[in-house]
Parts: sequence; structure tokens; C-alpha cells
Amino acid sequence: MSHKTDPVSIGRMNKGENNCITDVPGVHVGHVTLDEPLDNENGDYACTGVTAILPHNENIFREKVTAASYIINGFGKTTGLIQIDELGLLESPIMLTNTFSIPAVTQGTLEYLLKQNPEIGDTTGTVNTVVGECNDGYLNSIRTFSIQPKHAIEAIENAKTTPSEEGAVGAGKGMVCFGYKGGIGSSSRIVNVQGESISYTIGCLVLSNFGSKQDARIIDPSASKTNDEEAPTSDGSIMIICATNAPMSDRQLRRLSKRCSIGLGRTGGNFHNGSGDIVISFSTAHRHDHFAKSHTEVKTQVRDDHPVMNECFTAAAEACEEAIVRSLQFATATSGKRQRTVLPFYK
Amino acid sequence: MSHKTDPVSIGRMNKGENNCITDVPGVHVGHVTLDEPLDNENGDYACTGVTAILPHNENIFREKVTAASYIINGFGKTTGLIQIDELGLLESPIMLTNTFSIPAVTQGTLEYLLKQNPEIGDTTGTVNTVVGECNDGYLNSIRTFSIQPKHAIEAIENAKTTPSEEGAVGAGKGMVCFGYKGGIGSSSRIVNVQGESISYTIGCLVLSNFGSKQDARIIDPSASKTNDEEAPTSDGSIMIICATNAPMSDRQLRRLSKRCSIGLGRTGGNFHNGSGDIVISFSTAHRHDHFAKSHTEVKTQVRDDHPVMNECFTAAAEACEEAIVRSLQFATATSGKRQRTVLPFYK
Amino acid sequence: MSHKTDPVSIGRMNKGENNCITDVPGVHVGHVTLDEPLDNENGDYACTGVTAILPHNENIFREKVTAASYIINGFGKTTGLIQIDELGLLESPIMLTNTFSIPAVTQGTLEYLLKQNPEIGDTTGTVNTVVGECNDGYLNSIRTFSIQPKHAIEAIENAKTTPSEEGAVGAGKGMVCFGYKGGIGSSSRIVNVQGESISYTIGCLVLSNFGSKQDARIIDPSASKTNDEEAPTSDGSIMIICATNAPMSDRQLRRLSKRCSIGLGRTGGNFHNGSGDIVISFSTAHRHDHFAKSHTEVKTQVRDDHPVMNECFTAAAEACEEAIVRSLQFATATSGKRQRTVLPFYK
Amino acid sequence: MSHKTDPVSIGRMNKGENNCITDVPGVHVGHVTLDEPLDNENGDYACTGVTAILPHNENIFREKVTAASYIINGFGKTTGLIQIDELGLLESPIMLTNTFSIPAVTQGTLEYLLKQNPEIGDTTGTVNTVVGECNDGYLNSIRTFSIQPKHAIEAIENAKTTPSEEGAVGAGKGMVCFGYKGGIGSSSRIVNVQGESISYTIGCLVLSNFGSKQDARIIDPSASKTNDEEAPTSDGSIMIICATNAPMSDRQLRRLSKRCSIGLGRTGGNFHNGSGDIVISFSTAHRHDHFAKSHTEVKTQVRDDHPVMNECFTAAAEACEEAIVRSLQFATATSGKRQRTVLPFYK
Repeated sequence: MSHKTDPVSIGRMNKGENNCITDVPGVHVGHVTLDEPLDNENGDYACTGVTAILPHNENIFREKVTAASYIINGFGKTTGLIQIDELGLLESPIMLTNTFSIPAVTQGTLEYLLKQNPEIGDTTGTVNTVVGECNDGYLNSIRTFSIQPKHAIEAIENAKTTPSEEGAVGAGKGMVCFGYKGGIGSSSRIVNVQGESISYTIGCLVLSNFGSKQDARIIDPSASKTNDEEAPTSDGSIMIICATNAPMSDRQLRRLSKRCSIGLGRTGGNFHNGSGDIVISFSTAHRHDHFAKSHTEVKTQVRDDHPVMNECFTAAAEACEEAIVRSLQFATATSGKRQRTVLPFYK
Repeated sequence: MSHKTDPVSIGRMNKGENNCITDVPGVHVGHVTLDEPLDNENGDYACTGVTAILPHNENIFREKVTAASYIINGFGKTTGLIQIDELGLLESPIMLTNTFSIPAVTQGTLEYLLKQNPEIGDTTGTVNTVVGECNDGYLNSIRTFSIQPKHAIEAIENAKTTPSEEGAVGAGKGMVCFGYKGGIGSSSRIVNVQGESISYTIGCLVLSNFGSKQDARIIDPSASKTNDEEAPTSDGSIMIICATNAPMSDRQLRRLSKRCSIGLGRTGGNFHNGSGDIVISFSTAHRHDHFAKSHTEVKTQVRDDHPVMNECFTAAAEACEEAIVRSLQFATATSGKRQRTVLPFYK
Repeated sequence: MSHKTDPVSIGRMNKGENNCITDVPGVHVGHVTLDEPLDNENGDYACTGVTAILPHNENIFREKVTAASYIINGFGKTTGLIQIDELGLLESPIMLTNTFSIPAVTQGTLEYLLKQNPEIGDTTGTVNTVVGECNDGYLNSIRTFSIQPKHAIEAIENAKTTPSEEGAVGAGKGMVCFGYKGGIGSSSRIVNVQGESISYTIGCLVLSNFGSKQDARIIDPSASKTNDEEAPTSDGSIMIICATNAPMSDRQLRRLSKRCSIGLGRTGGNFHNGSGDIVISFSTAHRHDHFAKSHTEVKTQVRDDHPVMNECFTAAAEACEEAIVRSLQFATATSGKRQRTVLPFYK
Repeated sequence: MSHKTDPVSIGRMNKGENNCITDVPGVHVGHVTLDEPLDNENGDYACTGVTAILPHNENIFREKVTAASYIINGFGKTTGLIQIDELGLLESPIMLTNTFSIPAVTQGTLEYLLKQNPEIGDTTGTVNTVVGECNDGYLNSIRTFSIQPKHAIEAIENAKTTPSEEGAVGAGKGMVCFGYKGGIGSSSRIVNVQGESISYTIGCLVLSNFGSKQDARIIDPSASKTNDEEAPTSDGSIMIICATNAPMSDRQLRRLSKRCSIGLGRTGGNFHNGSGDIVISFSTAHRHDHFAKSHTEVKTQVRDDHPVMNECFTAAAEACEEAIVRSLQFATATSGKRQRTVLPFYK
């Protein structure tokens, strides 16, 4: 799970310093990983976790950032997107976990935000938490609800600007991708503005849990093998978080989100029926002050018709594709529920 | 809260037998209401609840119904809509509660469904729960998380086909509408197919928590008064559930959902910025068997271009408007947090 | 068709100086009206026209304005909305006409813009024209294609900042609303920013061609009568154009557009199946320079959470409702195809 | 432009008999191609055309088919999608042409449909024509409006069930893709239902006019070269028509449409800002009778959760990708406006 090697190189653009979503200044990522047998005769196992992505480490509710989402395929249970799409704002960490832990992670995130903001639900309105998920039920006993609210708080408190661990970590602990071990992957790209000494960073972090071997376009099926006795469920999904410091409006971030689906398709994803394939994008360029009194605010945004926008689009496609590949390449052999093991792509 | 009188009459169409969403055959509604001071010095009070709407009382996961949603205004935290919109199916009860109780109610609903269906998350995929909310923070101490998962299960188990209680009951216990006591309201309409001995029922149930007095079009401001010392927050919302036994596709149910917004506007709702105004519609006409083996299914649906469709649209507008009015008229004076009282419209 | 009287007063907000969309500074409206029997034995009659709404009278392609659309009901043929929604920009006049004259009006608008901008389609990209329609086939022989491209150019050239004529004028010449004579109507509202000496104007212009008598909520059916021998087709529609000088993003203009549907519902519109009910909104506050070189632009926008936004929402609902009422009240008895006559609401 | 060779093979699925959208039973394709210098000193040239895709060769207005659209990127002027999305029905041929010929092609298509259906616009409602476009302004003098309404009628009358010509034909005559000659391409896939002797066909036809050389993933840049002196405009686009005889609802066809974007991404398309990338899908399995009297209709549809749906998704991705490649491979060197020539990928 070391970050020292860079086994693949996708596309034509320059990568960020650490080839990670944390290359976007201010972005923090934290994980909590559960890896323990549960005390019963059914072979139940907690092989799961929580991952938190923060646009900055200040008070996100008070200092909201511009955001948008895009549903590639909606067989998913992600919460919080309705309000993001209405207001174009993110006011909580983005949390990732397994499908049935959405209530626990929502509860923990809510407790964290309520403690940090005594006004919420009292002298000001409520808060919109955002929790995404994939189904890790092949390796994790999801019916046992191993994740507790405290794990969400820990993941937020663990969040750092150093490069995220990748592979079988955090929410990625139990995920399976193209029949191999998937999970967390990340990548970044640099967009230079021609003729100006300005550059922007686009970073993606994915939670990969999708795809069938026969459709994979990035991996050599002969290079490895997984547990063939019981195929992982095809009820897969992918969560894609895309961050940038380029100044973009919510409409532009929705456009950017859509380009992440290009990267997904290039790896071999066909947006299966049972897949919850969801992108959430945010820009750190503008802070929306919850308690501002002015009736207007001033925003800088990239011009859609400037070439830099197309470069941002290409960057999102490349970073998403590479993040998926890295989620496979950094993942290690992982054992869980009913003594199942999922092998990595690399021997 | 008696159901015996019918104080208003909106529109030109005939009402169902009980003028309630339960007039749609098979639809069940259940409530759990919390009404108790909490043991502390802050005047905290549990003035809240849970309401469950079931399309039928069999196994909803195994026998899904066609469904659709429509976001009138997305300042809301309703969960489960992404999958409803992708697949056009509802596979859980629709649960209503306060904003911060979404995790507890999701957890309880999930536990109910997992117990009922041992296959979920094991030999079959996961399940999509649907939980809507409004912010009852004026009367209810929402930061205290009074609602527990068991309350969700109780609301489901309480669900009956007899007419729903209305007013300050279930999730409606602490809600405020146009500055008066709001909450649960319901109404129904009958659509006759010309020249045929067939009729359909359209029923609405609302959780009303929106609007400012100055915008209200249905009530006489001189007729009553509320606690003027501290105005309820304008961070209001309305959840609208629309049920029918007319055979409609998910696309048609989305069209029907949109017509509910007409009723909302007619009462004086202006879809305020801070309002989560969300419609979920379902049809009981077709059951989608989760474990069916066939690769196709056969569905009957109303023709969009037949006059019966316009009658269904009018029915949804009328039933929604009348359900809102009834949520005000059946509500009684309610006291809660910090000894606040919200008065009913009727003296 | 005089503009001197103000027969109705809807809502609680102050009206603009002329109670017309042209109260929004810079907005121009122009009409061309056709009213002549056609030379044949079928009773064919040209009872139709073209209406042009311009956000300003400079070069709209070079100086685009922020815009958004909202489809209330999509049984309509309006063109140009796909690009408005992708880019959030309007770069042509908004043209209104009858359903089958979309090609002629698009052609004329295109010729106007190509003449004005020699670069289009040569050294720069193409241009997105916007043409909306309603079906005036009860009074107008739409199969005869009476409108020519030149009429579109004339309507643009006729555009003025003085208050628009209303009723049976321009594209409204042959329209029918609630069984009475409909057509063009307009209204405006003033939004004051509390505590600041700033105010904004919201103006609506409608092309009304919808509704059945039995659903009308604004008119006394006993007050007038129309030609009862042959009922107008129910294949109605309404085009709603909403303009403001408040600084709004495309997302905010989409929110504003949605509030116009409130006004439509309040008049008795139930969004019938066969109705193309479409809103296009724009803000004149920001000009997007087509030939700008900078990679960013700076935009001021209203804060969604400031009370001024809710006032803008209410203004849009009120102005749309009143514009519809005025389209009825200024319309005069109109005769057309097959000697049909549609009477006005007022005797 | 011969159809005899099959130069590429993409994906794992079986192709239809002719690897063309016309493999879907009933689908007809027709072209009209303009290729002539225009009489002036500017080097103007008509290098353009019209392509018509018909779901069947009977009366499409009377026998509508189920349809849906999906906007990959909305910098485009395609008409007719609003009504397709509201009603889920296609009632006209799908026409493709250059950007500025939308009015002429709409007019011609309308005249064709009005002649075929004397009721339209008289005793029944109007008709929704569908016209898509790409900007062929590099090779074609689009400002001269060479296409006339009669060309649209001819393209419809030319439509045949034999395999479509590909490359620089019809609307594809002047299109440029990845810097090489693009245009019309088509491909098909067979979906077998496991355990049943039933199979379905998915066919795609594209009008390719997008992409930059540096992003292309399918072609060897050293293999060919184009006119390097003046780069084609980047204001590209792609129209994708996807046909199937699998019984699908409009919602399912929208899902299918989205999978076509996978094929686009795999060729190297990054959904550029200035690209109108639009998918229209239809199913021939169900006919919707315009004049039916019954208030309901019965539809068979594939179950989303049956494996055949994922196979259909993969088929759409593969067929779209291959159709794009074929649009390049069958295109021949083409000269047009100002003596520009665009070379094919293959020498």
C-alpha cells in the first residue's frame, strides 16, 4: 500500500506532486479501517471502513464550497445530493462507507458537525451531510452493522493533506473491482493556463467496486486470479470524488463530473444495472460564508469557452481512469466473510 | 384530530370514500408520536415522530411497485430518490420524520427489511430505503436525537388501511405551516374513465412545514394567532406522497408528481429557498417480483393522450391542495421546546 | 389593447413602472401580427404572428446574458434550450410564434444574426437561436405556413423598450386561453433589498394558449362567452419569459423559472398532457463577451440564503400569474380560420 | 465507401448481419449528399447533406415508437428532444444535417409529415419533428444555406433497409473527426437471452465531427495526415442514434443512451465544451397508435435486473465505439470550402 511507486501512466497531462486528490490545496483525506472476525459461527467478518474527504480543515458548515454531483447510474444510496444540486454548495465532509452503514456514518458526521456548530438546528437551519457507499457484502458481513457513528468521527479526525493510502483501506477495505481486489485509488492532473503563470490541479479519489472480468480493459486476465469458487456479486458500484482549485460554478462542476465517467468507461466499466456510479465534485476556490450578511457575493469562474476548460475536462477523465487503476494496483490480497479471499491484480 | 368533519372542499372532482391516501386500495399509513419533556434545564422537548406509508402490507422488497419522485425545491435531505429515479421502483416503506432523525429512521427501516428478508445483503443485493424529512426544530429539540430506530419499526407495524390521523401526529407532531400548526394532512380524488365502468383513486398525504403568513392564500390571518414572540424558522419544507391505483409508468408518475406542486402553489407556497419540497409518487397497479426469472415483464399503463390522464393530473393538484389545508385544520395547539406553543388556524 | 388601465392586482408586491417585462432595464419587445384571409375556399386564414424579446438592443451574440430554462410540461417544440442549459447563456433574441412556424422564424433569426456577425459559422462557431411556440390552429391555418423568415426579422427590428402591446398581438394573435381569447400578457414586480437603497425588477411576458373553462380559477364563466359551436383544441401551451436585472447565476435563474409555474397553477392551469409549458429566464446583470481573451470572468450573484431571493421567487410567481390574467383581459374578439371567432373574457 | 470489408473489431459481442443500424428490423436509413462548388469568388462550396433514420417505413406519426434522449454535452441545437423526453415517443423520422440547415430540414420534414397526415394541425394536434446537427463549417459554406426543404424529403424517400453507406455521405459529407475525415458510421451487436431462443439487435449510427488529434485513442497519428495548414474548428459534435428491437421503456432507453457515451469516451472523446454530443434511442418493439381509443395500453419490457439488460448496455457501448471508428475508416479524402481538403485516416 506504499505510495512510492507509480505503476501506471494514463493520458498526456502532467500529474500533481503526489498524484493524489490531496494535491488540491486544502483537501484532506482520512480513513478508518475495520478488519476483524466477528464472534459467531457464520464466518461473519468486519472487512469494511469509512473514508472522509474534506475540502478544507476549517469549519465546512460555516465556510461552504461550490459543489455539484452527477449520477452516472443511480442504483445507489448516496445521500445529500439533492441539496448539493439545488444550492451548488457542500457544507459537510464527503463520507464513503458500505451500503448499510449510511445511517451510522450519517449519525456520526451529524454529531461531529453539531458539536462543531452549536447553532445548527437551534438558531440557524439544519445541515446537509453527504454519504456515499458501495456494497462490500462479498468480503464484509454488512448485515451486522459493524460501523459505528464513532468511526465516522474518527475518519474525519484522521483526515490529512498527505497523500491518501490506497487500495484495501478505509471504505475500500472490502471492495472488489473487475473480480480483483479494489477499493480506494487516487490521481491528479495539472492544468496550465496558456500564456499565464497560473495552473490548477484536478484530483480524483475513487471507491472502486464494479465491473466484470470479461469487460475489463486495463488488466491482463492472465496476470492474476481471484477466488473462483464463488464469484463476487455483480451488484457493484463506484464513488468518484473530484476536487479542484480551479474556480468553477456548480454548473461547471457538473460538467467536470460528467467527464469522470469517461475514465470509468475507459477502464472497462459499462455502467451495469446494479451499479451505483456517482460523482461528486467540488471547487476550493470560493468560500461561501454561512453567516454573511450581504445580499450578494462575487465569484470568479473559468470561462467555459476558454481552452483551459477543455484541459480541465481531459484532466478529470485521465485522473479518474488512473485512480481506478491505482485502486487495483495498490490493493493487497484481502480475506473476510466466510473465509473468502479476493486477490490483487498484481501477484 | 377526529376525521368526521370535512371542513373544506377544493376543486371540482369527487373525493374518495374517506378523503384519505388510504382510499387507494392497499395503502397503509402508520404513525409514532413523541410528546414528552426531556430531562434537562434547557427546555428541551421531544415533539416529533415518525410516519410510515406502505404501498401494500406484503413484502415490499419482494413485491416492488412502480414509483417516481420530483424535486420541487431541493433544500432537503430525503434519501432513496436516486435509485427510485433510476429504476422506477419503490422497494421499502416511505418514512417521514424530522431532519436529524433520518439516520435513526433509516437504521430502523433497514433492520425491519433485513429481518423480513434474510437474503438482502447476503444472497441478493442491498435494499433502497426511502426517508423524507422536515425540520421541526421550532417545537422539537432536534439536536437531542429523540427518535430511535425502534420508532421507525413501530410506525411500520402501526400502519393500517383505515384513514390516517391528521394534524399534529407522527412526523407532523412538531411541524409549522404558514405560522400555524401544520403536520400530516391527506385527501383523495376519484377519476372516472368516461364510457367505462372503471375508476381510479389518487390520494395524497403531506407533511406540511412551510410558508409564511403573508403569503398564505387559504387562511384568514385574523381567524387565529400563533406565538408572536418568536417566529418559527422559515427553514420550512413539505413532503408530498402521492399514491394511485391507476396503472402508470415511472415517467407518468413523475408527471403526476409535478402536478402536486400546483396544489402547493395554490395554498400560497412559493417554494422558498430554504424549503425541501419533495414529491414521491407510486402506483399499486403493478407488482415487480424481485425474484422473477423471466427476462421481460408485461405492464399496463394509461395512455398519456387519453383524457383520463388530464383527470389524474387535476386530481393530484386538488388532492395535494386539500391535504395541505387539512394538515392545518386538523392540527391542534401544540407545545414543545422552550415552552413554545404553536396555535391552530381554527380557534 | 390600450395599456392605460390595470384591471387586476395580484399578490402583495409592488409593480414596476409600466407593469411590463420592459420595466427590466434594457429589455426590448417587438411584434409582427398577421391578420388576413388567405385566398382559397377552405376558409383558411392567417391569424398568427411573431414576438421577439431581446435582453438588450446591442449585439446579443457578442454580449451574451446569463439564462436558464425550465420545462413545466414538455409537449412542446421550443428550440435552443439544450445549449442554454449546458452553458447558462442566451446569445440570440427569444422568439415566439406558432408551432409550425418554428423553421421560418429560426431561419429569419439566423439570417439576422449572421448579417450582424460575419464571423459566425466562419471564423468563430455557430449561434444558438431560441424559438418557442404555441399551437394557434383553432384560429390560424397553421398548415399554410403564413409566417416567413422576414417576419422574424421585422419582429426583432420592431422591438422597443416601451411597454409591450398585450392580448391578440404578435405571436398571441391566434391563441386561446381557458376557452377565451388569450395571447400576449406581461407584468412586473419590484424587489427591494432591505436596508439598502437597491431594488431589482422581475418581469414576465407570457404567450397564453392553455386551459379548459372548467379549471379556470381567475375568471367568472358567467361574465362572457366564447364560440360554443366548436371548442378550441385542448392541445394548448404556454410560453413564459422571465427577465430580471438581479444578478443571478444560471442555477438561480432555473430556480426562478420554476416559481413561474406557481403563477400558472394559480390561474387554473393543471399542466395538461398536450400542453407545452416552458419557461425561459434571463438576467441582464452580467454580459458575457464572446471574444474575451481572459480565462476567467467575475460574476456578482444574489446569495440564495438572503431574504431577497425569496422575494424574487414571490415576484416571479406574482408576475407570471398577473401576466396570464392580462393576456386574457387585453385580448379582443378575434376571428380567423373557417370564420371561427373567439370572444374575450371581458364583454 | 464500400461496405464489404470490416476493418475493425471492437469488444466481445457478436455483430449483426451487416454490422449496421439497419440490422434492427424495420429501421431505414437514407441520405442526400451535396458536393458542388457555389458560384462566387469566396471559394464557397456545398459540402454537406442530410441523413434520415426511420424506425419503420409506415406512418410514423400514426405508429409512434418508444424513444428517449440523453445529452452528453449540450453545445448543440438538436430539436424535438423536449417532447421525446416528456412523452417517451418518437413520431417523426430522425433527421441529421449541418447546424444552420435545421430550419430547412425541419420545414421539409414537416411538409412530408403534413402531406402524409392531413389531420395534423387540423383535426388532431401538431407533430414533433426531430433534427440533429453538427457543424461542418470547415469544409462546407454553412452561411450559404445550401440545404433546401426538398433535400429532407428526398433523404426520407431514399431511406432503405439495406446497410447505410458510411463515411463522407449524407449529413456526414463535410464532417471532421480527430482531425481526419469523419461523418456517418454504423455498427450493430446481437444480444442473446440466455436459455431462450430469443435475441435482440442493438444498432448505432453516428455523425462524427468531434475530437482533437492529441486525444484520439483509436488511430495511429503516424498512419495518415490531414491538411495541416489550417486546423479544423474544435467546435465539434457527435450525433448518436441508437436503435433496438428489444422491448424497452423510455426510461430504459435513456439508460441505453447513456452507455453510448462510453463508446465515445473510448475512442478518445472528452466531451469538449464546444461539442454537441447527443444520443437519441428508440425501440421498435412497441407501436403507439395515435388514434387508439382505449384508455390503456399494454407494453412488454425487459427487466432491468435481468442479465440481458447489462448485455444490452455493453452492446450499446461497443456499437457506438465501432460506429465512430467506421465513420473514420470509410471516409474518403474530401475537398470543400476555400479548397480545403481533409484526408482520411487510412492512406
